[in-house]
Amino acid sequence: MTELHAVGQPTKIVDGQAKVTGAVRYVADLPLPGLLYARLVTSLYAHAALKRIDKSKALATPGVVAVLTADDMPQIPAASRGRLLLARDRLLFAGQPVALVLATSEAAAEDGAQNFSFDSEPLPGATTIDEALAAGAPLVWPEGVPSSNANDTGAHGADVGSDKHEQKTRSNIAATTEYKRGDAAAAFAAADVVVEGTFNTPIVHQGAIETQSTLAEPNLITGGVTLYASTQSPFDVRQAVADTVGLPESLVRVVTVPVGGGFGAKNGLYEPLVAAAALAVGRPVRLVLTRMEEMRTGVPAPAMRIEARLGAKRDGTFTALSARVYLDNGCFPFELAGFATFMLGSFYRLDTLDLKGFDVLTFKPSAGAYRAPTAPTVIFALDTLIDELAQQLKLDPLELRLHNASHPGDPMANGKPWPGQGFAQVLEALRQHPAWQNRAQARAQGRGVGIAAGGWLGGTEPAAAVCALNRDGMLQVNVGAVDLAGVATSFGMMAADAFGVSPDQVRVVMGDTENAPYSGGASGSKTLYTAGAAVLIAAADARRQVLSIAADELEAAAEDLEIVDGTIRVRGYPNKSIKLGDVAGKSMRFGGHYAPVFGSGRVAQDKSAPGFNAQLVELSVDRETGEVNVHRLVVIQDVGKAINPLIVEGQMRGGALQGLGWALYEDMRYDAQGQPITGSLADYALPGIDQAPPVFETQIVEVASDHGPMGARGVGEPPIVPTAAAVANAIFDATGVRLRELPMTAPRVMAALRTNGK
Amino acid sequence: MTELHAVGQPTKIVDGQAKVTGAVRYVADLPLPGLLYARLVTSLYAHAALKRIDKSKALATPGVVAVLTADDMPQIPAASRGRLLLARDRLLFAGQPVALVLATSEAAAEDGAQNFSFDSEPLPGATTIDEALAAGAPLVWPEGVPSSNANDTGAHGADVGSDKHEQKTRSNIAATTEYKRGDAAAAFAAADVVVEGTFNTPIVHQGAIETQSTLAEPNLITGGVTLYASTQSPFDVRQAVADTVGLPESLVRVVTVPVGGGFGAKNGLYEPLVAAAALAVGRPVRLVLTRMEEMRTGVPAPAMRIEARLGAKRDGTFTALSARVYLDNGCFPFELAGFATFMLGSFYRLDTLDLKGFDVLTFKPSAGAYRAPTAPTVIFALDTLIDELAQQLKLDPLELRLHNASHPGDPMANGKPWPGQGFAQVLEALRQHPAWQNRAQARAQGRGVGIAAGGWLGGTEPAAAVCALNRDGMLQVNVGAVDLAGVATSFGMMAADAFGVSPDQVRVVMGDTENAPYSGGASGSKTLYTAGAAVLIAAADARRQVLSIAADELEAAAEDLEIVDGTIRVRGYPNKSIKLGDVAGKSMRFGGHYAPVFGSGRVAQDKSAPGFNAQLVELSVDRETGEVNVHRLVVIQDVGKAINPLIVEGQMRGGALQGLGWALYEDMRYDAQGQPITGSLADYALPGIDQAPPVFETQIVEVASDHGPMGARGVGEPPIVPTAAAVANAIFDATGVRLRELPMTAPRVMAALRTNGK
Repeated sequence: MTELHAVGQPTKIVDGQAKVTGAVRYVADLPLPGLLYARLVTSLYAHAALKRIDKSKALATPGVVAVLTADDMPQIPAASRGRLLLARDRLLFAGQPVALVLATSEAAAEDGAQNFSFDSEPLPGATTIDEALAAGAPLVWPEGVPSSNANDTGAHGADVGSDKHEQKTRSNIAATTEYKRGDAAAAFAAADVVVEGTFNTPIVHQGAIETQSTLAEPNLITGGVTLYASTQSPFDVRQAVADTVGLPESLVRVVTVPVGGGFGAKNGLYEPLVAAAALAVGRPVRLVLTRMEEMRTGVPAPAMRIEARLGAKRDGTFTALSARVYLDNGCFPFELAGFATFMLGSFYRLDTLDLKGFDVLTFKPSAGAYRAPTAPTVIFALDTLIDELAQQLKLDPLELRLHNASHPGDPMANGKPWPGQGFAQVLEALRQHPAWQNRAQARAQGRGVGIAAGGWLGGTEPAAAVCALNRDGMLQVNVGAVDLAGVATSFGMMAADAFGVSPDQVRVVMGDTENAPYSGGASGSKTLYTAGAAVLIAAADARRQVLSIAADELEAAAEDLEIVDGTIRVRGYPNKSIKLGDVAGKSMRFGGHYAPVFGSGRVAQDKSAPGFNAQLVELSVDRETGEVNVHRLVVIQDVGKAINPLIVEGQMRGGALQGLGWALYEDMRYDAQGQPITGSLADYALPGIDQAPPVFETQIVEVASDHGPMGARGVGEPPIVPTAAAVANAIFDATGVRLRELPMTAPRVMAALRTNGK
Repeated sequence: MTELHAVGQPTKIVDGQAKVTGAVRYVADLPLPGLLYARLVTSLYAHAALKRIDKSKALATPGVVAVLTADDMPQIPAASRGRLLLARDRLLFAGQPVALVLATSEAAAEDGAQNFSFDSEPLPGATTIDEALAAGAPLVWPEGVPSSNANDTGAHGADVGSDKHEQKTRSNIAATTEYKRGDAAAAFAAADVVVEGTFNTPIVHQGAIETQSTLAEPNLITGGVTLYASTQSPFDVRQAVADTVGLPESLVRVVTVPVGGGFGAKNGLYEPLVAAAALAVGRPVRLVLTRMEEMRTGVPAPAMRIEARLGAKRDGTFTALSARVYLDNGCFPFELAGFATFMLGSFYRLDTLDLKGFDVLTFKPSAGAYRAPTAPTVIFALDTLIDELAQQLKLDPLELRLHNASHPGDPMANGKPWPGQGFAQVLEALRQHPAWQNRAQARAQGRGVGIAAGGWLGGTEPAAAVCALNRDGMLQVNVGAVDLAGVATSFGMMAADAFGVSPDQVRVVMGDTENAPYSGGASGSKTLYTAGAAVLIAAADARRQVLSIAADELEAAAEDLEIVDGTIRVRGYPNKSIKLGDVAGKSMRFGGHYAPVFGSGRVAQDKSAPGFNAQLVELSVDRETGEVNVHRLVVIQDVGKAINPLIVEGQMRGGALQGLGWALYEDMRYDAQGQPITGSLADYALPGIDQAPPVFETQIVEVASDHGPMGARGVGEPPIVPTAAAVANAIFDATGVRLRELPMTAPRVMAALRTNGK
């Protein structure tokens, strides 16, 4: 490693201009001759028997080329949402695709879909956790729950070896998970104080600006298929498509394209369906969901309920935690109740645990990952209880957290030790922060001040990267990862410092599954942590190769060489030098004597580097309307090493703003029949930049991770985790009223104020 | 290296079916929305002053979008044919591009080109070697000869360090080269016998089925450009385009596409022009030459004249060779006269050399590479003289060659020692061949039997390759080379044996300059020799990685493992095993503990491995018409190691058939004003499969090379080298008449018979 010149400097993303000027081509913009436009026909009922299908009128629609139903699809078991191509017999949620209409224009596809005729007979449903768990509830999977795909649920860092038990009895419970430690009954009996509550959070949509978008082009020579998919995970999509359509994965190519937001929703959904359609008709097919389809047929974050109880000694030491965690999986197993339960029992030192998680199936769209899946709910419950405890014990809530916070080496819920992490350090930083130091001033203005803190374990995955030196002196880095949040810019900075040039002399190419080395999905806050580590190794490898060639050319020892301003020179003899581009040229020419400069890096990044985040919210509550006004939001995060502080802070702000969405606005509502009633952004309150608090502060803490490149940790997920809890605690601070259901909308706040006579 | 199971087995090329069924998409077939079709407007005169240009009528043509002339092009010095974008002042050959018309259809572009109006004033020309060398000849470059691009001339293995002297005086001589050894006058005076002659060969066209074809698409985000070019050398084209249009080469991407024949003509020609046009208009532009344009404005093999004298002792030992080699470069320096001279003085042991080569500029299309450039002419001259010597000394011509042939370690013309080669071995093989053993029988039927032999030094170049293992157990190999003649199939076979699977478990991806590791052009008979060596290393690297993972999983030592039928197992314990695909899966999954299987290979292949070829022709001459009927053609070649004998033999046949074209049919004719008069395949006699001799035999000799992968040598170029000479010697054997000009058409043979009273 050379000195750090680029890393640590706030640096604008390389494709920023192209993005803001609209030059970037997303899937919906890709031109392709012969392209067919696809439109879905979807179920009207949450649970129904599919009866008569009549394609004829749809097929007769001008411009319609094909109308595909289950009979035209690969006959595979529907073991996951992505494999549920088109409905055959039963319809499991309102919005489930029944047919795909392919036409030569978008309008014709829409007309064709309107003309598609089918009958379905409504069946009794169960669309809430309670309905699904009720005795005699209709079963989502009467023949047995399909086994879930580890990649679907594990992609966000959730695979921590928790105990999952597939239900053998027929029920709507897809999985249960238990963490037990000590004697809960005795511990609660011995506790000086016990707080408890039931916390509900709704289905929340990831709300990416770009909807689910896939273009599939059949390869008429190989019989394979190429996908241009707006996905976070090209290699996972390759596998999913190959498995679904029955091709070896070598014949499936997934090209990395710019992604207009993912947030967990784009780990593979409609790609198998669109690939199957393209293969069925032998023409390229594109499906870009409308916003309403996105809301009806996507994979939003699950609704959850946590019933929790926390006991403590008078001095604030936590003694026991019990909880029941219910997660509304929708119609396919998502199975993250276990991980939620695990987090609940891990963040603080606890001798006694009695935790149980239930993954509940309902007749609704299956749940998907959304930025730190389940963690906002977990911290909403946990930090509300901690706040109540502090209030009852008259302890400083920040000191209370610091007193109990798990440190590296402390046991997590599963008994395994915490890896290196900076939970205590982010709490310390919050303690020092002026917003906390001066909280009395804010309160004097009638404002409430609330805090919360939480973390994310961080995903791990193997990765590889390569880099080549071009004749223009440019180091070209090739990775198979997706640039979801500016990570390509960070890769370039890391490669620049590892190789010894400035970042504008590095170009990062995000490739495709056929041409780029393997990288996992851009999820689990792990892209930089894993692929970035491979990039560092590849760049250092290329540096060694370059210095070796230069040593030969300059008749010097490689150790005596330095790279300065794109030139390799002998230290102390600046005139004895050769340009990087000339070294490249010598390694890439007829008759040349040096192998091409081509660095390669492979890593098996299998140790997590958890990232912790503490937040402070300063708000006021309008007592006439219940409206909450957030005046200040402080986001403090341990990122290990801020490779590009500009992106890191962007992630911290973006995550926290989404956290405000959870706290105050967002709520996917369904009626009693399971019909979505928030089908557009007119009905569903996605926060925009207008909802950003006027004072929005970030503070980076750097507790170097043991395994991350340059000490970096995952950054993307932690900032969404504590926001809702901090808002709830601030509302209590302002009003004395506790809200235990998200979002904390004005009517709910108003109702709570009234109920509590405030 | 595991045992060889695939290598050495005749194996059909993987894309054969796609090729014969027409499924392969060439550049002309690529669909691209917004594409503009380009048509050239070209010079009518060989030498002229460009006067008035009027775009207006062309621009007014329906469908025409732009009409580009020199003013719309980058203002760069015309230092090579590829950089001569559009004419500014002077026109240097009939067919030189003056304007490029861009339109929304091919027909509109053609109409627009017809409507383009310009005046040019003819100037005195010089279109033959003699005219150009005559005193007072008009100079092609009155201001000085532009310096040539090493890549243009060196690409076929010609860069052997010969002495080139740029002419300082103003003349049409671009370069002269000398090789002198001993005292020529004394040696010839002392010789027992001296033979001499002047040999002429015409301009010959490479005659690829697919004409020069380029599609350039501007990248509106980066300002760069992507090319889909029918080229043998994507990385050289990247460099040429970058240099020409003034972009850093990192912003130029050249995508490897199927190439419908190159034979040396496709090392970069119209790519810079088309790239500049696309950048000028901001839209994709495609230029596919018509056959007539291809004949008028391509880069055919140069006309040559060799005046040579060979002296020998009575026992046949060669004592002295003198020669003057003239090469018609056309309007840009090609500078291969030196290499021709070098070959002339290298193939046989000679104490005395007096060789001089002259690269002559004429007002004609500039010369280009064509399969073993200049070698057919060199061997035509040399082997005719050797045959005459044998006749005069009454020695067996084969024994005479064997007696004098250079062996490894003997000095070449430049004094450097011959690397390992099999010249003697191919002559030995020919001696044993029934066609030679039984030549008396053929002669008894009135047939002539002629032999000749020659070789090709073979190009060298650095190269790199990578490979990844997919979950379906497929080893995917990525190279930056072009699959010009089935080399991808051979790469797959080599990787299969190096990795330990069958070839159908290997997939070779020929990438693009942005995603694939560096490879030189598919020229110089070096693709397999260089990139193949990198593939072997990469595959062996991947094998080591796979065995290491399997050793861990199976709790065994890597040395005890074997790969059998796609499964890694412990030797002797076949049940203790793991599938390759499962190893891949473990290295490419969330939370995985193994780095992705990703092999990398880099080589600096800088030692030549010459390939020698000996041929025997059996023919009869129709005394009434002069028509030559080839009854038998025997092609014997040292290929070092025949990786895929089917492709090797295909190359041997294809090269020798092209050699027959040189011998008997092909002749690019120009009238006295330099106007091409063989402007189509109706006028220019390209041999087809009908011209293949009824008995067409190949024999592979394997003298392992020291540096080639598995001992392989270059294969592509040697088989064209001796054919014309062998035919000439067979005509003499049949008729007693020597022909010293190619092609040996019926009228020429008839004339020679008459002149010699036969």
